[in-house]
Amino acid sequence: MDKQIRYGRITSTLVANLAAIAGEKNVLTGDERQNYSRDEAPGSDQAVPDLVVKPGNSREVAEIMKLANEARVPIVVRGAGTGLAGGAVAFYGGIILSMERMNRILEIDRHNFVATVEPAVTLEELYRAVEEYGLYYPLYPGEKSAALGGNVATNAGGMRAVKYGVTRHFVLGLEVVLPTGEIIETGGKFVKCSTGYDLTQLIIGSEGTLAVITKVLLRLTTRPGKTEILFIPFNSLHEAIGAVPDILVRGIVPVGIEFMEKDAIQMVEEFTGKEIPLHSHEAFLLIIVEGADDDEIQRMSSDIGEVCLNRGAVDVYIPGSERAKRNLMEAREKFYPAAVHLGILDIADVVVPRSRIADFMVEARKIGEEYGIALVACGHAGDGNVHLCMMDDGTELHRKQAPELLTQLFKVGVAMGGTVSGEHGVGSIKKKYLDIALNESEISLMKRIKRAFDPNNIMNPGKVLDIDSSKS
Amino acid sequence: MDKQIRYGRITSTLVANLAAIAGEKNVLTGDERQNYSRDEAPGSDQAVPDLVVKPGNSREVAEIMKLANEARVPIVVRGAGTGLAGGAVAFYGGIILSMERMNRILEIDRHNFVATVEPAVTLEELYRAVEEYGLYYPLYPGEKSAALGGNVATNAGGMRAVKYGVTRHFVLGLEVVLPTGEIIETGGKFVKCSTGYDLTQLIIGSEGTLAVITKVLLRLTTRPGKTEILFIPFNSLHEAIGAVPDILVRGIVPVGIEFMEKDAIQMVEEFTGKEIPLHSHEAFLLIIVEGADDDEIQRMSSDIGEVCLNRGAVDVYIPGSERAKRNLMEAREKFYPAAVHLGILDIADVVVPRSRIADFMVEARKIGEEYGIALVACGHAGDGNVHLCMMDDGTELHRKQAPELLTQLFKVGVAMGGTVSGEHGVGSIKKKYLDIALNESEISLMKRIKRAFDPNNIMNPGKVLDIDSSKS
Repeated sequence: MDKQIRYGRITSTLVANLAAIAGEKNVLTGDERQNYSRDEAPGSDQAVPDLVVKPGNSREVAEIMKLANEARVPIVVRGAGTGLAGGAVAFYGGIILSMERMNRILEIDRHNFVATVEPAVTLEELYRAVEEYGLYYPLYPGEKSAALGGNVATNAGGMRAVKYGVTRHFVLGLEVVLPTGEIIETGGKFVKCSTGYDLTQLIIGSEGTLAVITKVLLRLTTRPGKTEILFIPFNSLHEAIGAVPDILVRGIVPVGIEFMEKDAIQMVEEFTGKEIPLHSHEAFLLIIVEGADDDEIQRMSSDIGEVCLNRGAVDVYIPGSERAKRNLMEAREKFYPAAVHLGILDIADVVVPRSRIADFMVEARKIGEEYGIALVACGHAGDGNVHLCMMDDGTELHRKQAPELLTQLFKVGVAMGGTVSGEHGVGSIKKKYLDIALNESEISLMKRIKRAFDPNNIMNPGKVLDIDSSKS
Repeated sequence: MDKQIRYGRITSTLVANLAAIAGEKNVLTGDERQNYSRDEAPGSDQAVPDLVVKPGNSREVAEIMKLANEARVPIVVRGAGTGLAGGAVAFYGGIILSMERMNRILEIDRHNFVATVEPAVTLEELYRAVEEYGLYYPLYPGEKSAALGGNVATNAGGMRAVKYGVTRHFVLGLEVVLPTGEIIETGGKFVKCSTGYDLTQLIIGSEGTLAVITKVLLRLTTRPGKTEILFIPFNSLHEAIGAVPDILVRGIVPVGIEFMEKDAIQMVEEFTGKEIPLHSHEAFLLIIVEGADDDEIQRMSSDIGEVCLNRGAVDVYIPGSERAKRNLMEAREKFYPAAVHLGILDIADVVVPRSRIADFMVEARKIGEEYGIALVACGHAGDGNVHLCMMDDGTELHRKQAPELLTQLFKVGVAMGGTVSGEHGVGSIKKKYLDIALNESEISLMKRIKRAFDPNNIMNPGKVLDIDSSKS
């Protein structure tokens, strides 16, 4: 951590002023602060904030930011706390700005297909709300209790990126509060905009280091008629990955193409106590398709099946019932909780060009073996996003070696044209690997952008980039 | 223009140094500079640059930028010169950096669906090149001679935004040269990225004010099986626009939904000398659909026809031949050249939420009548982008009043939740209207971002934002 940073202290006057803004019961200084001390990152360090404040609206956020900026007190914005990179933890102390009270769906605009939500609305709440209007929010980062503000802050991805892209592609506009307390609105209910720099896109993925998101305008679509899942075993990951470009080049656009290896399947079976069909094969593609009707689904499924069988698939399993379908999706979704349950040192979130996944996995396995650390993998084959869980055997040696192993993995991924975080974000935990993906000019440019927003470096200090405050 | 700006002069040493970098024949100081003095904006002011240099690769660009930055000489990047906002004109003198020699398609990656191109590759060249691989670049800004670097710089939109979005959604990564001469690469052959701030998206749409684009990675798709056009007359624009949400809410996603009014049709007929079917009706939707096969096309077309007839459409015309199809597309594409031929004062590129287009047009007509200036409109009904040509009657009065009229139009559009430029960019011509769409905090933040890239304000000065160089 940067020793140069000198922040202001939380004084009793500041506490009183915050209480005057947000209401006394929305300022926490006691033991409840403990609940705001970590996110869901594996083995993440904890830090109890000096204070938690829960604003009720953007005006209150603006007033809080003004006070914090004047007093040079760190502000760490927190949504549902489901992050995986230590992004919402107050390692420099100061204030956790918990958005939990700003949880209203403000509007669902059926004519323009836009949902306007406050940041603490969860994915689950949004899915449910838009359904009533016959509309659909297609992004599926998996963790449905995640807050949309957090999804925007990390540019969450998930399983439907092959067809739909990531959060970035669904945010039409934002209301944000700058560190100075200024409120700005970016974008709007339109898809075309060439009016100055795109502040919306710059704030997406900035992990709370530039501004506080107080409102999000999300693009909606219509609900697909039908969805189906194909579960396709192969004798090797190489064969499985090799089938992916062949599917896409046919003009078939699945919603998602996931891969799992045998050890990942076993891990999930152990965790859930449910057997997964065809579980004895080496590698699997799980392909999600959407179509207007049964005919379209059937045509896509049979085309995909044909391509995969030509590429060496052992079988093509299409679950007959909604329940069987649900079980398969669960097998993929429970990958991370199962790994956490067994104990993991860390999880990588590497992205490589999708044609390189199998090559990457070969190299990753070699590196894992060198260190004697077990790696269990699954990921998004359609978009090149690989999650590697480094399993914890409980020894101190492995714990010490984990960052070294991760460095090697990231170097291989970047050398293949990839990057170090696809969807989890950099936060505090992946910060030390940033310079593997970015050169000095890029990091230095990002720091200058950070200063343009936040000259006093009060916004989520120590996350994504290390800013030397003494130079400001 | 900003009187505070003091730029360096082009010395004979600088000319010699530039010749040493790019080759003597690629440095123009004579009459040929005249060809670089304007873009395609209506009535755009001209300015002959002091010098034109044509670099051959990004290393040369980097060396040129270093020299220009040291000498504090303005750099205006120019692609094919098809811009409509005076963005590529050197109003402050200095150097036009013409990218025309950097026109190679570097790679078409069939496995990852990515084209890597130099900035001067035109849309037409890209369309042709990817077709050979069975791939497709679906964006269609209309002007096929436009360079892709310019498309990226203005975030070009066009007719297929309803289904595909705009240029922003197809750029996966960039190589750019910063004003300091540093070369950086952003993004890559992947769709997911949460690794620091999104510099790719920030540079897209920045109109040459932040960095020089030297390489573009573009996402490709597969070619749709079939396309069809529906041409649907209505008795009023309100009825036509009213049909749009009904089409979309059914789950039909056309590629584009365009609207034209009777006067626009007449103008184009006069210009091309070709009669357009059903031309006596008041307003038209031109709907482009894509599908896997004839069946899908037929189903979509019949659904769209039904919705439109329910909403008051007079008829649904589906051209029988490729030639008739081509003629209809041409009717829409020739709108702007036809207007220019007749003589126009200016063209607005307003965006409003798509449900507000008809309301906007009612207000726009009223304002036009107040000033006695004829407005001819067409635009993108599916994405709320309206182009209003303010026709020139040759009087000095109207010429003087044009900016006032445009101000009124923009105010109405912004009050309806829209913005002042959807796809043409701000450049020099729309700069004075920027504060209608953006508040002081936003403009000031954009200026700070500009400084983070370009502290000496050498990149395309006087475009998008006015920077006071004396303060730097």
